[in-house]
Amino acid sequence: MSDQLLARLRQFVNDRDWEQFHDPKNLSMALAAEVGELLACFRWLTPPESEDILRHEETSKRVLEELGDVAICLMKLCDRLGVSIEEVASEKLALNEARYPVDRARGRATKYSDL
Amino acid sequence: MSDQLLARLRQFVNDRDWEQFHDPKNLSMALAAEVGELLACFRWLTPPESEDILRHEETSKRVLEELGDVAICLMKLCDRLGVSIEEVASEKLALNEARYPVDRARGRATKYSDL
Amino acid sequence: MSDQLLARLRQFVNDRDWEQFHDPKNLSMALAAEVGELLACFRWLTPPESEDILRHEETSKRVLEELGDVAICLMKLCDRLGVSIEEVASEKLALNEARYPVDRARGRATKYSDL
Amino acid sequence: MSDQLLARLRQFVNDRDWEQFHDPKNLSMALAAEVGELLACFRWLTPPESEDILRHEETSKRVLEELGDVAICLMKLCDRLGVSIEEVASEKLALNEARYPVDRARGRATKYSDL
Repeated sequence: MSDQLLARLRQFVNDRDWEQFHDPKNLSMALAAEVGELLACFRWLTPPESEDILRHEETSKRVLEELGDVAICLMKLCDRLGVSIEEVASEKLALNEARYPVDRARGRATKYSDL
Repeated sequence: MSDQLLARLRQFVNDRDWEQFHDPKNLSMALAAEVGELLACFRWLTPPESEDILRHEETSKRVLEELGDVAICLMKLCDRLGVSIEEVASEKLALNEARYPVDRARGRATKYSDL
Repeated sequence: MSDQLLARLRQFVNDRDWEQFHDPKNLSMALAAEVGELLACFRWLTPPESEDILRHEETSKRVLEELGDVAICLMKLCDRLGVSIEEVASEKLALNEARYPVDRARGRATKYSDL
Repeated sequence: MSDQLLARLRQFVNDRDWEQFHDPKNLSMALAAEVGELLACFRWLTPPESEDILRHEETSKRVLEELGDVAICLMKLCDRLGVSIEEVASEKLALNEARYPVDRARGRATKYSDL
């Protein structure tokens, strides 16, 4: 995320004196609650219907809001813990690149420990 | 997230022919499963203990990996849906700025509809 | 759940002196973490494949364990809060029966507030 | 759960022709979405505040509804998979009794594999 967006988020939280609620434990719960709302948008859709969820006005608005909530909670949690989203994603991707060698993982949704 | 990281993630998925599994419905489930693993790190900690979770080697490694997994799943889901994480976060933050006026929301963890 | 099973669960927790960890906040997180593990079993399956998940030895064992974990966490949470699972389920079902009249809800996965 | 409640739930679903939506994959998502709503009730509370959540009229009503939703989804998922909640809970409890010997697990919130 851009430094500008992160600064705006910090300002938003500080202006409302909400840091007191935002310990990492609470933020992990907030993140999970928002992901639950995102799941609610997808639960009764078939996989093909899920591809089109942003093409319908009534579902699009809600899904974009829930994605935004999830992103904001994840930003806040990483920021509170003093790490960068970009870095944790990049480091985990490097780990996955090693754990899932192309020749063994190709076309298979199998956990690395079972490959 | 940077364009470079997103390009690397797309390459990782394409190399393994995993796009077939990554419809938005499945990705929302994968995201929730990773958030569940993150919650598992925090569930028995007191709020103050949760602040220090990255200061202990045994918990730090796992938490950073789970944060990375959550970030990667969110990136993939947004990318599959054709939206930018930065944009959905920024638009939701704008909405929250309007929904939670400083004077009414200050110091209160109350949902906007109850303010 | 039977009184006998609930008594056994209470004994299990007391014997290990775990009540100290089991405040409702923590138990709600434990419940969500277990549900995340259950989701992980289903995330890459097609809906028809999900019907057969208990017919394959390798997936069956894990799914049954995760269902057990979810049930145990829900029992513990209800017990800590002093309510009965049977009663909360029965009362919510009564509410749903009223909220979703057969003639309007038939064949439609629509939230009651949108019916 | 009692056979009577399960029969009532089946009737509720059949009357509305909802079995078509209730494959195990979808039900696991519905379960997770309801658990997310439960988490939302607890996220900003301190652990002691969470003990009293049923003592306040405004929070009590919502928490009882969410617990009911979670119980109903779990019942439906178990029923669709052809297993009994009571049995899966009892079998997992037996496993936990073996995995967490009293002398090593006493007073410690440590995963069995790390004991």
